[in-house]
Amino acid sequence: MIDPRTKLLQAFWRYEQALMANDVAVLDALFASSPATIRSDGGTTLVGHEQIAAFRAGRPPVPPRRLTRVHVRDLSPTTALVVAESVRADGGTGVQTQVWSLDAGRWQVTTAHVSLAPAPPAPHLPDGADLSTIWRVAATDVNELAPFPEPAPSAGLPLTGLTVAVKDLFAVAGHRIGAGNPAWLAAAPVETDSAWAVTALLDAGARIAGIAHTDELAFSLAGTNIHYGTPPNAAAPGAITGGSTSGPAAAVAAGLADVALGTDTAGSVRVPASYCGLYGLRTTHDVVPRDGLVGLAPAFDAVGVLTRTAAHLAAAADALLPPQHQPTDPITRVVVVPALMDLAGPAVQEAVSAALLALALTSDAVVETATEIGPGQLESWFAAFRTVQAAQGWAEHGAFVAAAPGAFEPAVEDRFLAGAQITAQELETATAVLDQARAALTALLPPGTALALPSTSSTAPRVGASAVEIDFTRAATLRLTCLASLAGLPALSVPTPRVGTSPVGLCLVAGPGQDRSLVELATGGSL
Amino acid sequence: MIDPRTKLLQAFWRYEQALMANDVAVLDALFASSPATIRSDGGTTLVGHEQIAAFRAGRPPVPPRRLTRVHVRDLSPTTALVVAESVRADGGTGVQTQVWSLDAGRWQVTTAHVSLAPAPPAPHLPDGADLSTIWRVAATDVNELAPFPEPAPSAGLPLTGLTVAVKDLFAVAGHRIGAGNPAWLAAAPVETDSAWAVTALLDAGARIAGIAHTDELAFSLAGTNIHYGTPPNAAAPGAITGGSTSGPAAAVAAGLADVALGTDTAGSVRVPASYCGLYGLRTTHDVVPRDGLVGLAPAFDAVGVLTRTAAHLAAAADALLPPQHQPTDPITRVVVVPALMDLAGPAVQEAVSAALLALALTSDAVVETATEIGPGQLESWFAAFRTVQAAQGWAEHGAFVAAAPGAFEPAVEDRFLAGAQITAQELETATAVLDQARAALTALLPPGTALALPSTSSTAPRVGASAVEIDFTRAATLRLTCLASLAGLPALSVPTPRVGTSPVGLCLVAGPGQDRSLVELATGGSL
Repeated sequence: MIDPRTKLLQAFWRYEQALMANDVAVLDALFASSPATIRSDGGTTLVGHEQIAAFRAGRPPVPPRRLTRVHVRDLSPTTALVVAESVRADGGTGVQTQVWSLDAGRWQVTTAHVSLAPAPPAPHLPDGADLSTIWRVAATDVNELAPFPEPAPSAGLPLTGLTVAVKDLFAVAGHRIGAGNPAWLAAAPVETDSAWAVTALLDAGARIAGIAHTDELAFSLAGTNIHYGTPPNAAAPGAITGGSTSGPAAAVAAGLADVALGTDTAGSVRVPASYCGLYGLRTTHDVVPRDGLVGLAPAFDAVGVLTRTAAHLAAAADALLPPQHQPTDPITRVVVVPALMDLAGPAVQEAVSAALLALALTSDAVVETATEIGPGQLESWFAAFRTVQAAQGWAEHGAFVAAAPGAFEPAVEDRFLAGAQITAQELETATAVLDQARAALTALLPPGTALALPSTSSTAPRVGASAVEIDFTRAATLRLTCLASLAGLPALSVPTPRVGTSPVGLCLVAGPGQDRSLVELATGGSL
Repeated sequence: MIDPRTKLLQAFWRYEQALMANDVAVLDALFASSPATIRSDGGTTLVGHEQIAAFRAGRPPVPPRRLTRVHVRDLSPTTALVVAESVRADGGTGVQTQVWSLDAGRWQVTTAHVSLAPAPPAPHLPDGADLSTIWRVAATDVNELAPFPEPAPSAGLPLTGLTVAVKDLFAVAGHRIGAGNPAWLAAAPVETDSAWAVTALLDAGARIAGIAHTDELAFSLAGTNIHYGTPPNAAAPGAITGGSTSGPAAAVAAGLADVALGTDTAGSVRVPASYCGLYGLRTTHDVVPRDGLVGLAPAFDAVGVLTRTAAHLAAAADALLPPQHQPTDPITRVVVVPALMDLAGPAVQEAVSAALLALALTSDAVVETATEIGPGQLESWFAAFRTVQAAQGWAEHGAFVAAAPGAFEPAVEDRFLAGAQITAQELETATAVLDQARAALTALLPPGTALALPSTSSTAPRVGASAVEIDFTRAATLRLTCLASLAGLPALSVPTPRVGTSPVGLCLVAGPGQDRSLVELATGGSL
């Protein structure tokens, strides 16, 4: 016995597929055969099945489109509303609002309204934007003494023609690593070799657009570097980009580069991806070598990339992930944990749920609710993660931080100093909790299963938001992002249509090594 | 106790007025205060009252628009759907689909989808269209020997700059009257004076664009003249224009003239208006002098005009109606007779009902159902009308028709010959029935009240439709149009948005002398 909601979604998806196939007979059958049935667009309202069928028979096929969000509302036991958003290959968007009625066990459309809009203008920075908040070294600044390393020369490589914004934690041959802090930069040597990940992108044909700022030593999610300024978020003017991969994300969002190469310890790729409307992949821990990278907490640090398009994401992920990586298991099941959804505000929950429904329909994955992970458990996992992260941060950089008092933003300095206070006993207890958490998450996510959650608890806060607001947002977001981090799992933030005027991401987390499965899930339905 | 449907419409209209006034507080209050509320256009879907209110607060006022059709569907006892079509001053159109929910006695919008479309291209004839099917004498054909009479010279008159297509039943000084029949034309004298109605339009500043064809002696509703061809319907390519004011309607629909001057005995203005998407006014019997006009049935013949725009209608009506005409009584009540609605097909009924609802909301008129006129009564009135019309047609033109056997299309000739068979007794009985009908209709339509009905039973049949189809359509349409004719009442066909791809009209009939009230009702809400 299939429940009515499932039957409704099956009927909706059958309709969408028939539309793409221009299967007029199926479309006609899914519209209620009544003189009261309505089909509108901006210019015409057709009333009655006969008129609608005549219109449909006479028009050309609908251009290919991909569902981006599907909203469902129950209006009565036998009436439901579906509002489906979609995007076309040219970036244009569409919305269809449908009223469905259940009659004799069959759902049929009784009213439909469709409308289209052209592609919105690509995000861009206002004239006179201060690019020095994005780049520490832009390609236009390099001179003969310190050129950026060149991409592999053969044309037609996967990333040929694309440019990369490198987070200022990766070694770029001929340059120093700045790590978002002037004192660090001053003490840093000129690198002789590029980091493994930089080299991998160059080998795939990408050219370096610049070295872009990071939050200080990556120990922040805000993207508000007190030394270099706050990079502008072209996708949400007036809002922060989030961090710590702030400069690279800003560059990609503004179209100044195609791929951002970043790191993600506790969300530093996923948060700016969500705030800037980008795809953002955190790779499985230890799958992408971290050679030539200034880390923060080696147990959690992972390389990641951010892109504007699914095609760029697939190409960049391909360049970083080893070809002998385990085979892709198509994701056929997506689990949702209510306690995680509840960490986001209602508007973000709605956007993420609607995006997930679109993704599930498009990929033919089932969506299930997993209640075995509750709020208390999440809270203890989060506390353990923070403990281990702070202890590792202090172990990694304590000496430098202690030797340069006042060189860091106070909040960042405080985070490092808190790590100094953690006792061996506390660390041991926390490590044991994380072992349990990792086991629970790995068990939840066998091959073929992904966890869906909001990438961030909110859309991007405004530049200049109060410390209280930033902390509140950060605390809720960290409880979402820490899961993939603590278990070393791959996680992909997929942009959803906007929440009001701001982007936000749907995050998909898979079992270890399932990076490609996530990329395929998110890009499989792309045009 | 106001019923829920009325309260729904009141809420809908309050919303529409608030939108026009950009009264954001009222708009916000009429949207359900819930995070689940949805508002879409083609480019954006906003979810949650907060997002929608923020959007509304930040946008400029919505451009003025006039509702053209409002469709309502009950989805459940507490949920209803409203689909409202509108037109803007530039001719662009819009559709809003709204789901309303009744909660604690208040209707509020829970989902809205709005979309806009630019003005459709103006109807025009294909290149190479045969204009000789429209004009017997076009302005471009006249020579120095037979120029058209000039308009009154002073500029700035109500019709200055507008052109008139004159039905070939009106005298135009210097020309003969053709009456749609070559034999009639051959026998006709050159007129020395223009008809009263022609002179009235010239005096108001209009220029004659040409003398346009009529169905033979106006005794048809089809517009398919076997001698001069079928004029093209630019508003519904491939369909007939309807008649008998066929040529003038074709000219106005194609933009070759601004005003059609016609006659209406049994629907000859209203039918082509409906088929061609024009305004069409049949004036009160005997209010506009018929001097210089070849009539058909003097008891019913009335002068009328057709126009593309409400402004042209108002100006042309003003030129024809005497200035001392009784004062305008605003129409505050519109009655609908189910037996009349049932004469139209479901698609036309739906279009007309939805147009009437839009008109009622815009004009603040109440709509009531009048069941005192039933199908049996309508049938007996129609039969009596046909009897008197045929008898009068024979009295008027029998001698000519009898003297020129084979000069007319057989169907037209048959109609005249049928009139010869009517006995004095039959005529007396029919006249008595019409007296009763006239009394009943006049009682139904006191000043301030109008009757609403479909202008025609269907949209325009295709050129070449079978005789059976034409007859079927004609029979049902005549039962609708005969009412105003038999009672000498003014009737106005107002174009509604299309039924599928074809125009159709909403007809409004008022008490005798209430011509201006009808024009004001139909044009009062115009932009």
